Amino acid sequence: MNIILFHPHQSVNDRVTIKTPRVIEHVIDVLKASPGEELKIGRINGPMGTGTIEAISPAELVMTVTLDASPPSATNCILVLAMPRPKVFKRTLQAAITLGIKSIHVIKTWRVDKNYFESPALSSDNIEKQIMLGLEQAGDTLLPEVVIHRFFKPFIEDVMPQLCQNKNLYIAHPCAGVTAPERVKEPSVLAIGPEGGFIPYELERFNEAGFVPISMGRRILRVEQAVPAFLARMFI
Amino acid sequence: MNIILFHPHQSVNDRVTIKTPRVIEHVIDVLKASPGEELKIGRINGPMGTGTIEAISPAELVMTVTLDASPPSATNCILVLAMPRPKVFKRTLQAAITLGIKSIHVIKTWRVDKNYFESPALSSDNIEKQIMLGLEQAGDTLLPEVVIHRFFKPFIEDVMPQLCQNKNLYIAHPCAGVTAPERVKEPSVLAIGPEGGFIPYELERFNEAGFVPISMGRRILRVEQAVPAFLARMFI
Repeated sequence: MNIILFHPHQSVNDRVTIKTPRVIEHVIDVLKASPGEELKIGRINGPMGTGTIEAISPAELVMTVTLDASPPSATNCILVLAMPRPKVFKRTLQAAITLGIKSIHVIKTWRVDKNYFESPALSSDNIEKQIMLGLEQAGDTLLPEVVIHRFFKPFIEDVMPQLCQNKNLYIAHPCAGVTAPERVKEPSVLAIGPEGGFIPYELERFNEAGFVPISMGRRILRVEQAVPAFLARMFI
Repeated sequence: MNIILFHPHQSVNDRVTIKTPRVIEHVIDVLKASPGEELKIGRINGPMGTGTIEAISPAELVMTVTLDASPPSATNCILVLAMPRPKVFKRTLQAAITLGIKSIHVIKTWRVDKNYFESPALSSDNIEKQIMLGLEQAGDTLLPEVVIHRFFKPFIEDVMPQLCQNKNLYIAHPCAGVTAPERVKEPSVLAIGPEGGFIPYELERFNEAGFVPISMGRRILRVEQAVPAFLARMFI
């Protein structure tokens, strides 16, 4: 946890009161912080700065805050991610958020087990948890949107055209002869397939939509490696 | 598993016999491959190509192989990695190997729990397993070396000077003002710290040795995210 995040309703003027057990435990057990100490803090979807601890108990953390900094700039890319195994999904979602992605579309493809969509990993509680963990790790305050699409065709036909307007379009594909470009400045969409990859039909549909296949050389990465690898190379 | 790997002693001329249950199960249960089918195969530390299945049973996989390709080129960087939590270590080691690292030095730093070094994750059996999983994922045949250093000072004083000769030296550090460079061509060493980071004393020692601090912008990554992120950006 590299920043403590609070909701607007948790503050009155410059005084913030946090009751989330997970956060309080971290401050007490990991940071071992006591009254008078300063911690990095940020208002969700707002500015960030420092908070001075006024009081801390297992029930409540009270801080006086000065919010004088902007969060780090968002990563200018929409991520389209084939749903991985639920355990991997949690880590991968966190990674994408830590790397500054603000729009993530999780999709069903042929090689995605449809049972994955019944997993508690996709509950709104869990997604909110991963979002918070990802932002707290990065030191960021801006909430991303995470949208789940249970069917490929409606996503490709109805959602994609709008997402893709005026954007650079990339699809990570191990067989692509072109290595991923660096520091892409234009707004982009990046699609990353499941373990085993997209099937030819899916690749064709992305191709028709204007997606350019890119690779990480000859090496084939796991999804959880591909997300930080492509994002860090292309958009940071 | 994107390539089947075999040891030289498992082959006679162009015929390879594999008895590793993990590999046979994968071919039967995941690939559902049967005699006559071709699979990607490579000789450990040697060339790669295709193998035609001659016979397959739960006990044995026999293939006729043609090895006419080189493995992907190695990533020209030595990775110095502070030992993460054992579970994270496994994933991170695999990621580094999949991304082509051929020399990994795992070190103790102040913020590394010394119990991590007693973990079975560091047994030679487990390290060998992660190496195989990493290479099989990448589609690579070249074994990396993984060296464990249980003490910081002897590593820095006795091992580092030799490792670092005639190399670009980088240390990933969230506070660094300089973002990681792209496509570094020179042989390099990259040091990645533990969760919580290196302590000032350690940073000073790396600094004295000529390491340049680099970051991923203002965002602070987890170790398992940092490894693919920095490697993919800097060395692929």
